[in-house]
Amino acid sequence: MLASLCVFAIAAMVYVIFGFSWQGAPGRPAHVLMIGGKAWNWIAAEPLFLRGLRLDLSPVSLILLLQMFSVGLAAMIPLGAGAERWKLGGSCAATLLLAGWTYPLFAHWVWSEGWLSQLGSMYGLGKGFVDGGGAGTIQVMGGLSALSIAWILGPRRGKYSSDGGPAAIPAHNVVLVLAGCLFAWVGWLGLNSAGAILFNHEEPSVVVLVAVNTTLSACASTLAAVAVTRLRFGRPDASLAANGWMAGLVASSAAAPFLKPPAAILAGLVAGALVVFAIDLLELRLTIDDPGGAISVHAIAGIWGLLSVALLSDAGGGSSGQWLAQLIGIATLLGLVLPLTHGLNWLINRVYLHRVDAEDEWQGMDLCELGAGAYPEFVVHSDEFTQR
Amino acid sequence: MLASLCVFAIAAMVYVIFGFSWQGAPGRPAHVLMIGGKAWNWIAAEPLFLRGLRLDLSPVSLILLLQMFSVGLAAMIPLGAGAERWKLGGSCAATLLLAGWTYPLFAHWVWSEGWLSQLGSMYGLGKGFVDGGGAGTIQVMGGLSALSIAWILGPRRGKYSSDGGPAAIPAHNVVLVLAGCLFAWVGWLGLNSAGAILFNHEEPSVVVLVAVNTTLSACASTLAAVAVTRLRFGRPDASLAANGWMAGLVASSAAAPFLKPPAAILAGLVAGALVVFAIDLLELRLTIDDPGGAISVHAIAGIWGLLSVALLSDAGGGSSGQWLAQLIGIATLLGLVLPLTHGLNWLINRVYLHRVDAEDEWQGMDLCELGAGAYPEFVVHSDEFTQR
Amino acid sequence: MLASLCVFAIAAMVYVIFGFSWQGAPGRPAHVLMIGGKAWNWIAAEPLFLRGLRLDLSPVSLILLLQMFSVGLAAMIPLGAGAERWKLGGSCAATLLLAGWTYPLFAHWVWSEGWLSQLGSMYGLGKGFVDGGGAGTIQVMGGLSALSIAWILGPRRGKYSSDGGPAAIPAHNVVLVLAGCLFAWVGWLGLNSAGAILFNHEEPSVVVLVAVNTTLSACASTLAAVAVTRLRFGRPDASLAANGWMAGLVASSAAAPFLKPPAAILAGLVAGALVVFAIDLLELRLTIDDPGGAISVHAIAGIWGLLSVALLSDAGGGSSGQWLAQLIGIATLLGLVLPLTHGLNWLINRVYLHRVDAEDEWQGMDLCELGAGAYPEFVVHSDEFTQR
Repeated sequence: MLASLCVFAIAAMVYVIFGFSWQGAPGRPAHVLMIGGKAWNWIAAEPLFLRGLRLDLSPVSLILLLQMFSVGLAAMIPLGAGAERWKLGGSCAATLLLAGWTYPLFAHWVWSEGWLSQLGSMYGLGKGFVDGGGAGTIQVMGGLSALSIAWILGPRRGKYSSDGGPAAIPAHNVVLVLAGCLFAWVGWLGLNSAGAILFNHEEPSVVVLVAVNTTLSACASTLAAVAVTRLRFGRPDASLAANGWMAGLVASSAAAPFLKPPAAILAGLVAGALVVFAIDLLELRLTIDDPGGAISVHAIAGIWGLLSVALLSDAGGGSSGQWLAQLIGIATLLGLVLPLTHGLNWLINRVYLHRVDAEDEWQGMDLCELGAGAYPEFVVHSDEFTQR
Repeated sequence: MLASLCVFAIAAMVYVIFGFSWQGAPGRPAHVLMIGGKAWNWIAAEPLFLRGLRLDLSPVSLILLLQMFSVGLAAMIPLGAGAERWKLGGSCAATLLLAGWTYPLFAHWVWSEGWLSQLGSMYGLGKGFVDGGGAGTIQVMGGLSALSIAWILGPRRGKYSSDGGPAAIPAHNVVLVLAGCLFAWVGWLGLNSAGAILFNHEEPSVVVLVAVNTTLSACASTLAAVAVTRLRFGRPDASLAANGWMAGLVASSAAAPFLKPPAAILAGLVAGALVVFAIDLLELRLTIDDPGGAISVHAIAGIWGLLSVALLSDAGGGSSGQWLAQLIGIATLLGLVLPLTHGLNWLINRVYLHRVDAEDEWQGMDLCELGAGAYPEFVVHSDEFTQR
Repeated sequence: MLASLCVFAIAAMVYVIFGFSWQGAPGRPAHVLMIGGKAWNWIAAEPLFLRGLRLDLSPVSLILLLQMFSVGLAAMIPLGAGAERWKLGGSCAATLLLAGWTYPLFAHWVWSEGWLSQLGSMYGLGKGFVDGGGAGTIQVMGGLSALSIAWILGPRRGKYSSDGGPAAIPAHNVVLVLAGCLFAWVGWLGLNSAGAILFNHEEPSVVVLVAVNTTLSACASTLAAVAVTRLRFGRPDASLAANGWMAGLVASSAAAPFLKPPAAILAGLVAGALVVFAIDLLELRLTIDDPGGAISVHAIAGIWGLLSVALLSDAGGGSSGQWLAQLIGIATLLGLVLPLTHGLNWLINRVYLHRVDAEDEWQGMDLCELGAGAYPEFVVHSDEFTQR
């Protein structure tokens, strides 16, 4: 849990010191690459340390403020996948690269008149790649980092016993999980509203539509997750319901300002069903151990959100151009951002092992890394390490 | 705890799909009944699915947004009374009826130029029934649903042992309860402020007065609850103090924009004392088992809040007309809304039993309905129920 | 934990009833003392019960609203230092004096054109004593009260065993601590922004700069605390990291509107390192038992924040006049506010002992004062220390 504080702190600081320099904002200086007679904008050219940037209420300063929080959020997503076996040093190093390089680069392409947003004006592909609330930039970005970390770390010890069946590892306090849902909801209302105004250039009055759609998507997704779980396993599951809630929020991020309320409900229903199957698929078929469901909730639901812009929204209106723009964006995430992220994390792992020692893992990360138990009510006996 | 997510999700979705159609907003189409030569507005006539409603910052769209949350809040109140013995399916069905029918109907009468608000213009009863923040519409409505559920479910097993004395069942984590108080306070500041502007048609500058009065009412109510508990039982009780805090918030909802700060303190003191006696009365005399105190906190304090409009506020100025309007509103809640709600819940119970099986109840609802314990630190052994 | 609710409630009510009468606001009636031919403004002259104060959106009404919360915050700081051994009655009495007298008096001097703020206009000492977000008025004030309480109460039983070495007393749930960090952060963004506009008379657009600086200061402080702890003790500590986060917020309060972002990072780094050493110093050298670290986090980091105005900010520009103004303010806190607070708390202790009985302390305060355990998962054995 200490890791959350450290990761957020590093992400926000690194982003201010040099991450923002590569991301920039619309209408700010940037480097351009001439390809095929067209000027492709691929990286910003801001000075370090925010020098020369006036922090008043101008759009660029609001973008900086919003992005400082978004990058922290994206950097915290992989923590869910690396739970209980990721070293603090490793998560700090991965955060440094995410917030200092990968995130700003892709965010520039999408939000700062970079080449993905230019697809609209240059090739008439609808409005270009549309992602106001960061379903791709924040969520898929964070979810793919989580995937990379889960690959590198491997499953928790005891998760897949010798016969290959996954063992459930009961963990979190449901009350806290649900308090997290409430926090996330409030945060998402802000995130989606701010994104719609700053990045989709909508009128401020769009916030009502965004709030309604974001909430409906989360509600529908929760109910879909509960229904699917009940049908498949006989009884609903609180943890999957919470994952459904989060998936609905994630899925709403790309299209919230462009959906009619019934379409937002539909987007949520798909997200909730999808996330249950995705968690199952990852855990059982692909034996990727993701304790927090970070990959399914953020990457899978985020990709669905990006598709819903073309499929359900008023934005592209289902035009083939908008479809193509969204698909190019998703392809960039999977074909370029994922290998880049994974390569960087793999390099870190060569220098400094990401995974904690076997002994420490049995005793629980918090105990080992922090010198204090996160759940003081679990008493660890000093002679044997049985947790219950 | 899963129930909270599901109930909120169902309430918000049902309300958007058809609940809002019956509630409407001031100045929107509605059905009118001619009685005694006067046109009584009794139900709205909006299309389903919010069709034709522009979600910009217009008052009607803000009302929809606020009500989507309010109806979710009202629907969650009965969960406190049904704790540990209410089936998930039952709470979902009850929510469907509350959010889809009972709530919108009464809210229309109060907030959408319905007949309760018409009492002022038609019969000169002060300003008509006044309830900007929803002390009646949200709180008493939710509290009466809680009463209905507590009646149908009956007390928890072991609550009233053979000799009839109530046994204390220790439960919640006080830290989380207090975090809930903080959340509630922030929510209430928003709720009361928005209600004052949208439903009482006050100037936006009223928010300062509303914030001061809401806070003072909660503070005074807490201290009154602590003082009464100390006097009666020898030592204060954290759980009753939190109930006092909530009761103060509830009581402030109706009159917050119309009170002077000392009157808000007085309203809070009464609410806090009232709630302690009401909890006692329900538990000991009426043997209604309400683990969360939902009936006392929401219904009783809410009714007091409605009365305080006539008694303490600048609105009616203690005029007999305002008194009559408030009493008619309260009578409608007790004489019409309560039987309607109870009848519907009773019907559900005929089809699908609200109460969980005896065995499941011993093991704890969360475990049974959710497949995971809300408090993982309580280990339930399958052969015996020792709590460690 | 009940104490938090009671202390906040008493502070807010007392402040509204008579505390605000002594504090006032800029441009409101006040008493003046002629010394050396200059008119020193030393206390406000407002009527009791907010009479005559219109609660609209005027600056004075916003100041009242903000101060109602700030005084509650300041009053809750000593609870951290008195944890597990401070009687409820004692904390209520101490709150009464803090919120009704000490806080309003010092706040008048700083924020209501009192003599500390007059230092600038009368003697040309920069801008006078600068403290928009309340690093001195709220944090140092609360931290010094905490120091006074820790002195009076003495250490927890068993903290310093016979051989003099401090025994670690493991306690809190880290997840809740971190949720507290999130809450605090949101609150601080509001506090520092509102303070910059209302007390430093900055343009509303300053909120972006304030939000960036506040966040950077907290992030840098956390990382500094983690780094220092790792260097000194071999492994980072979650509790000290959270203290670092809080110290960074505290340190940002005085200078946030006047710092460039790199200077805010520097201010945070110093605060984080400082707090680790301060906690150590208090605990090991001075054997002052402060379980929550309230003295170090609020008083020490607050004083550093006040100094950073002169050292790092654009406000005084490092002018010797601004240095002098800040030092006079700090001297007033240490030489006048601390003795006053300590004297009043000492007087209370003569009438009504602050400290709980030895027996109750062993069983845990919450159990004894509240009649219910804050952590129900800690079961106290049934043969000794029965829980009720």
